[in-house]
Amino acid sequence: MTATPKAMPQSSAADIDKVREKARRLGILSMMATTAAGSGHPTSCLSAAELVAATFFHAMKFDPRNPNGSESDRFVLSKGHAAPVLYAALAEEGVFPASRLMTLRQFSSELEGHPTPRIPGVDAATGSLGQGLSVGAGLAIGARLDKLGTRVFVLLGDGELAEGNVWEAAEFAGHYGLDNLIALADINALGQSDRTMYQHDIEIYRKKFEAQGWDTQVIDGHDVAAVIAALDRAMAAKGRPQAIVARTIKGHGVSFLADKDGWHGKPLSKEQLAKAVAEMGGPIELPADPGRSYARADLPEPPDFPEPPAPSYKADAQVATREAYGNALKRMGAVNPHIVALDGDVKNSTFAEKFGDAFPERFFQAYIAEQNMIAAGVGLAARGKVPFLSSFACFLSRAYDQVRMASISRSPIKLCGSHCGVSIGEDGPSQMALEDIAAFRAVHGSVILYPSDAYSAERLTEQAARLPGITYIRTSRPKTHSLYSADEKFPVPGFHVLRQSDKDSALVIGAGITVHEALKAYEQLKSENISVRVIDLYCVKPIEGSRLAEDLRACNNFLITVEDHYPEGGLGEAVISALAEIEAAPARFNKLAVNGLPHSGKADELLDAFGISSRHIAEAVRGS
Amino acid sequence: MTATPKAMPQSSAADIDKVREKARRLGILSMMATTAAGSGHPTSCLSAAELVAATFFHAMKFDPRNPNGSESDRFVLSKGHAAPVLYAALAEEGVFPASRLMTLRQFSSELEGHPTPRIPGVDAATGSLGQGLSVGAGLAIGARLDKLGTRVFVLLGDGELAEGNVWEAAEFAGHYGLDNLIALADINALGQSDRTMYQHDIEIYRKKFEAQGWDTQVIDGHDVAAVIAALDRAMAAKGRPQAIVARTIKGHGVSFLADKDGWHGKPLSKEQLAKAVAEMGGPIELPADPGRSYARADLPEPPDFPEPPAPSYKADAQVATREAYGNALKRMGAVNPHIVALDGDVKNSTFAEKFGDAFPERFFQAYIAEQNMIAAGVGLAARGKVPFLSSFACFLSRAYDQVRMASISRSPIKLCGSHCGVSIGEDGPSQMALEDIAAFRAVHGSVILYPSDAYSAERLTEQAARLPGITYIRTSRPKTHSLYSADEKFPVPGFHVLRQSDKDSALVIGAGITVHEALKAYEQLKSENISVRVIDLYCVKPIEGSRLAEDLRACNNFLITVEDHYPEGGLGEAVISALAEIEAAPARFNKLAVNGLPHSGKADELLDAFGISSRHIAEAVRGS
Repeated sequence: MTATPKAMPQSSAADIDKVREKARRLGILSMMATTAAGSGHPTSCLSAAELVAATFFHAMKFDPRNPNGSESDRFVLSKGHAAPVLYAALAEEGVFPASRLMTLRQFSSELEGHPTPRIPGVDAATGSLGQGLSVGAGLAIGARLDKLGTRVFVLLGDGELAEGNVWEAAEFAGHYGLDNLIALADINALGQSDRTMYQHDIEIYRKKFEAQGWDTQVIDGHDVAAVIAALDRAMAAKGRPQAIVARTIKGHGVSFLADKDGWHGKPLSKEQLAKAVAEMGGPIELPADPGRSYARADLPEPPDFPEPPAPSYKADAQVATREAYGNALKRMGAVNPHIVALDGDVKNSTFAEKFGDAFPERFFQAYIAEQNMIAAGVGLAARGKVPFLSSFACFLSRAYDQVRMASISRSPIKLCGSHCGVSIGEDGPSQMALEDIAAFRAVHGSVILYPSDAYSAERLTEQAARLPGITYIRTSRPKTHSLYSADEKFPVPGFHVLRQSDKDSALVIGAGITVHEALKAYEQLKSENISVRVIDLYCVKPIEGSRLAEDLRACNNFLITVEDHYPEGGLGEAVISALAEIEAAPARFNKLAVNGLPHSGKADELLDAFGISSRHIAEAVRGS
Repeated sequence: MTATPKAMPQSSAADIDKVREKARRLGILSMMATTAAGSGHPTSCLSAAELVAATFFHAMKFDPRNPNGSESDRFVLSKGHAAPVLYAALAEEGVFPASRLMTLRQFSSELEGHPTPRIPGVDAATGSLGQGLSVGAGLAIGARLDKLGTRVFVLLGDGELAEGNVWEAAEFAGHYGLDNLIALADINALGQSDRTMYQHDIEIYRKKFEAQGWDTQVIDGHDVAAVIAALDRAMAAKGRPQAIVARTIKGHGVSFLADKDGWHGKPLSKEQLAKAVAEMGGPIELPADPGRSYARADLPEPPDFPEPPAPSYKADAQVATREAYGNALKRMGAVNPHIVALDGDVKNSTFAEKFGDAFPERFFQAYIAEQNMIAAGVGLAARGKVPFLSSFACFLSRAYDQVRMASISRSPIKLCGSHCGVSIGEDGPSQMALEDIAAFRAVHGSVILYPSDAYSAERLTEQAARLPGITYIRTSRPKTHSLYSADEKFPVPGFHVLRQSDKDSALVIGAGITVHEALKAYEQLKSENISVRVIDLYCVKPIEGSRLAEDLRACNNFLITVEDHYPEGGLGEAVISALAEIEAAPARFNKLAVNGLPHSGKADELLDAFGISSRHIAEAVRGS
């Protein structure tokens, strides 16, 4: 079976009857699955049944053998709690056997409470509301880059339309004129714990979408002919993203569920199910088993690419790691056509502009809307792109939930956060990332890279493009001199010992700007005839504990860590934890980290005032 | 001097002249201060000078001796990088000597690169864009609760209007009809790195605000008479929040700055400054020194309150900690009128509804918009309220940047995250908080409380209402039996030893649901004649390392930590880190934490499958 468009001809009465019966089946299957599971959200499925049925069985170009293929239209269920209605549609399409629906939410089932990419046809995990339209926008941009004419359909709930992320996505899609993106808003007026803010005052949603530059149709979401006609119009339109705002009833079609409070997230009893099915026209037969394996193919991993030309800097050049990041993106851009970059209106600070200037068709200004930037990156990655997403490191915290969801999607997005720590200086604490290592370390499957000079920044950025999973690159504002050459390798995990002797009295581990402080301390101590070993921990996660333990033993088991980050969850704890995992521990330990709420000042003043300058390192060593 | 309204009479030509001269002075002072500092954003000040001048010197009820007092109108500079224009206005009002302006951004100055509450007249730190309107909404709700008729003015930039948080705030303010909230949008069409998305297509912003239920006026932001008239109309309006959307020019008034690219965040040279001042009508004299101390009064701390009646549960009752949280809020609500609660449309899951049902005038449905909920909480706290802000723990990650900014504000907000960890069961990983301890530990000044039963949840929630700073309460979904009685105390920091003997072979530390797993393991091991010590670490930050070290020594220095959280930055690392700080370390260590990307299933299945059940604890002990 190949992917064929089902939409373009005028819809016939037969089409409408087919979709209506599909909607009935999706509703009944959703109720059956949640009753079998003993939990779930059947009423949230019933409000969307016609919207989903018309999208899958009238509008979408869909290959059940390869629903995530580059030539398939895509469907994103932003209101992830309506998972059963999506799963029912996938089963009806023949993606997997309908019998799987009755395993919903079980430990052994890939059909989880909320969708994840373990399921064919799902591109991104949803369930944290308000992210799906951004994922869809990323998929739509990816489709546009691929020039294959495919579309992206996103189903949103009205509860989640309160999330700012939705409107970041809407303005982004409007700005880029993503006419291959179609949003269906299921306005059922009932949230989890209350009626929604606007209930059925549906014109408000029209105004909101139109204000963002969308063409918007308002329809009755249970009128199948109207839904089909709206989809046809949306697919024929050009130049603007398309919103279909549908007035619906939560629990539609079942008298004791329809528009009733207290039914959110509750399955029907067996008796209630029988009554509901009878009200909806009686039992259905399960669709035929497609009779083939349906396991999800490999999740997206970055495609391989040839070695770009080596980086090169003058020996005495002072270069910020953030600038080297931009240089690396530009070098790679020439040899890896899959790389795309987005930046949150700080491209002249993160240096993403170097890539943007060289490859404008693969650079997207994401403006000051970090949530959308990250979730759109997940959509791009799901289409095989390698998205590099940059902002000040502190502002990536704005999208922490989106990063969390990306990890559940096992999405290979690349994050670059510049301006970390107090070393940014005068701008003050609102612009300083001091929690980012802790936050991103805790993200499942993440890799954290923290370069200390231009060469390590270049090489680690190259590494990021090859690594699966979420990779976070932490860059610094100040210009620093080179510690390495173009020949140096930076394996992940790994670290480099920069100074050592056979009489080292302490092991000093830094990363980024604190490596330079550690080297200053080394020189000072050397003049006092004290030897210390200095390590550049350029990969903060994962860490090779056993190799570190050897160095620690060679340094009297005296450990000093120094980081431009708060004390919790950062480099110091990562080191101690890696050692503890192998039941190693320092006999003495000094964790130097930003020891108070910082404020404005010069970078050097702040490094010293908040306890992480060369002076503090030297004092910690001498205190031994 | 007492606070007096300046607005209500018709504005005269003299008013207009006064404000125009103030605007000129604010612009010049902003340029002077940034030139003295050698960094900063003078052009972002010039676009807003008339808006700020008219707000301070025409509209606001303002007592320079007590600008954060309950009877003062408030001003929130959401576009925090325009700090100098705010500082200039405060100096002109006589809050502090104008000579301080020339210390801008210096290490020793309270006048930082972006505003913080170290400065009188500032209620919340800004500088991470798009949060100020939420802070303003919180202040406006607080003012309404106080029934003092005060107003809140918020100045927004157009770059930040791309942030979803702004529109969460706008819909919240529209929903609650906050007619004491006036937003001034400074549409200067230039972001940091590019023209803004909509540039001067100013009607788009009108549509956006109007779609959220705001009255909206569009004006020329440099026409002082128009700004004054718009403020007068906004202050006279009733029932809806008021937006004044102002077309402005970045760098207005100076030929070589006005609407020029490449001037964002750049100060003028001394020569450029002289030329600019000449173009703006010539030099000014600094305002007179008010000649009194102006240090910021104490930052808001929770007010004291009498002991509420003790909690009480039946001996055999199974109660979830999340439900006990709701019970505690309700108990306290009766004796502490300052407590308010907001919830993100999950009040029936977090049990915030118990408070809402009892005190509806102090409960605010925040819908599914966590960013606004947290930042509005900061505004409420700045008016002396004690805001408890709840959602699923995983969804609080949506507002991580807002929490980060709250810590810079040293705001005493109380967060409650329910449904932590894999123990939620069938809903799957999108609904499981597994990174939250790491993220919130890294927040400066935070306290992390993690109850294991109903009594500890009740008492720790009470503690939270008394603690300064950000306090995070992590509650669980499953019902559990009581471990404590109503008499038990829960000092912060602290932990309780639940099982011990003089021959304990290992120290098992859990919190929340894993305490119950540890106790199950204890019983199993006891039947095998193996004794272990079991600790309930109900306070995860801060931790008393020295007391823990004593218990560790008494348990053969064999440590097992077990947490419903990913391995990084959570309970295990917190314990190891607290021990390392005092140079203690276990001889043997087993860190049990969620050891993979979880999926749907029953709570017990998941606890076991992901390595944190009683079976794993017992095996870890036996492995010794």
